[in-house]
Amino acid sequence: MAAFGSQFFQPLGATANCSPASKKSCGRRRGNAVVAVGRDSAADVSLQSKVNILMDKIKWDDKGLAVAIAQNVDTGSILMQGFANRDALAKTISSRKATFYSRSRSSLWTKGETSMNFINVHDIFLDCDKDSIIYLGKPDGPSCHTGSETCYYTSVSDLLDQQTVENNLALTTLYSLEATIAQRKAESVSPQSGKPSWTKKLLLDDKLLCSKVREEANELCQTLEDNEDKSRTASEMADVLYHAMVLLARKDVKIEQVLEILRKRFSKSGIEEKQSRPSSN
Amino acid sequence: MAAFGSQFFQPLGATANCSPASKKSCGRRRGNAVVAVGRDSAADVSLQSKVNILMDKIKWDDKGLAVAIAQNVDTGSILMQGFANRDALAKTISSRKATFYSRSRSSLWTKGETSMNFINVHDIFLDCDKDSIIYLGKPDGPSCHTGSETCYYTSVSDLLDQQTVENNLALTTLYSLEATIAQRKAESVSPQSGKPSWTKKLLLDDKLLCSKVREEANELCQTLEDNEDKSRTASEMADVLYHAMVLLARKDVKIEQVLEILRKRFSKSGIEEKQSRPSSN
Repeated sequence: MAAFGSQFFQPLGATANCSPASKKSCGRRRGNAVVAVGRDSAADVSLQSKVNILMDKIKWDDKGLAVAIAQNVDTGSILMQGFANRDALAKTISSRKATFYSRSRSSLWTKGETSMNFINVHDIFLDCDKDSIIYLGKPDGPSCHTGSETCYYTSVSDLLDQQTVENNLALTTLYSLEATIAQRKAESVSPQSGKPSWTKKLLLDDKLLCSKVREEANELCQTLEDNEDKSRTASEMADVLYHAMVLLARKDVKIEQVLEILRKRFSKSGIEEKQSRPSSN
Repeated sequence: MAAFGSQFFQPLGATANCSPASKKSCGRRRGNAVVAVGRDSAADVSLQSKVNILMDKIKWDDKGLAVAIAQNVDTGSILMQGFANRDALAKTISSRKATFYSRSRSSLWTKGETSMNFINVHDIFLDCDKDSIIYLGKPDGPSCHTGSETCYYTSVSDLLDQQTVENNLALTTLYSLEATIAQRKAESVSPQSGKPSWTKKLLLDDKLLCSKVREEANELCQTLEDNEDKSRTASEMADVLYHAMVLLARKDVKIEQVLEILRKRFSKSGIEEKQSRPSSN
């Protein structure tokens, strides 16, 4: 998988254990870039050199900054956005924790150094102009200082409608659907509340729900077996996904948990992964 | 769903038809904000007023700018990042096309005005500090001027490994998995190329593939029927998703197409949607 496994940068010497508190003892300044090192091995020096070459490729603005966006590697949600300077990017590379430059405090800060809700960076991407950075990673907890999962919870359409909707997160399709299903589940505790809903019917009837999951999986297969057209396959897959997600909601399982499992499995080949599973699976 | 349907801002008068070429004839300046209007209806004036109130809530920087990130509403991929000023945000609200302020040209630009690859904005989100904006939308085509799907196709881990990997997009889990399956499909044309792979086995054997999709859907249901624990449900859902995605690849269907169908369906209630479908479905 593109962003995982062997393609991810390797930790530098003892740097994986460098905590924010100990950064002075494990950091070493080369030019503007701090690269944490454990010992002066040839590999460390070589990697420092590569990091410095990388830093020189980035188009820092007149304040020495580039935009840095933290994104959840599993869900794709944009967690927060800050700015990075050379030191912040170097520290993110060496510590694997999303680190920014605070313009108000004129200092580095690692997200989570106070709250412990670090963002564990799996890979970093640069844009075509080399002046914008994505930290693609997994958050330990809420990424916003307000306790919200992400910092983007205010919808302009709500503001224009003069509605106050608390914590209306910027959700993409799969997670909007998950949120809708969760809302129907909350309503289904009082079956008379809210509108009639197919989702509520499914949530209240395990037999119906399971029969639909099996039926839709079968219909998806039939689009291959009967050589139906692509649009039919896409539509049947939508049915499978929706009904399976209702089942997840029924069991209080989040789609993010499922994606995390897939990410961990596919860092090795499918056959290797299957061989490593318990025989019951 | 949070980001869709009635919660989306309504078009202003005739503005939905305002093309970039005709912006002068359908735009009207109020303070710093351009709000396109068709006629001086009370509703238009009221909405202009609301837009201006919104603009005053945003913490523009010393150059009058805020970071604006365009994100694909279905896949969550970060398409590009630019900056917005008041005019750019107002134009995005009125035209529903992602519009930025070009710092190099000191002018507004709507992504797609040259390439026609517009980003059709479904909603806009502000962060907790009100100085960072997400344009959540659907691109008409590649969002990068290079022709790449997104501007983020350069991995820092590749650069540090001194590898040149063309178009290594910043993919989140579902799309990394899709890319891996597509790679196995390309290899399966020559069965001897690449490593042995369960995915390749499935891609070359429709009977095996369909039997696995049905089997995994059945096992997912059993976790509900047999009251198995949540981790089992998550694991079985991962199996369903993976095998169903192999079937999608076998039929040349992208998961983005499936998500687009789900988004369109769930802008109305499930029951309304089911009633609106052809009786064969």
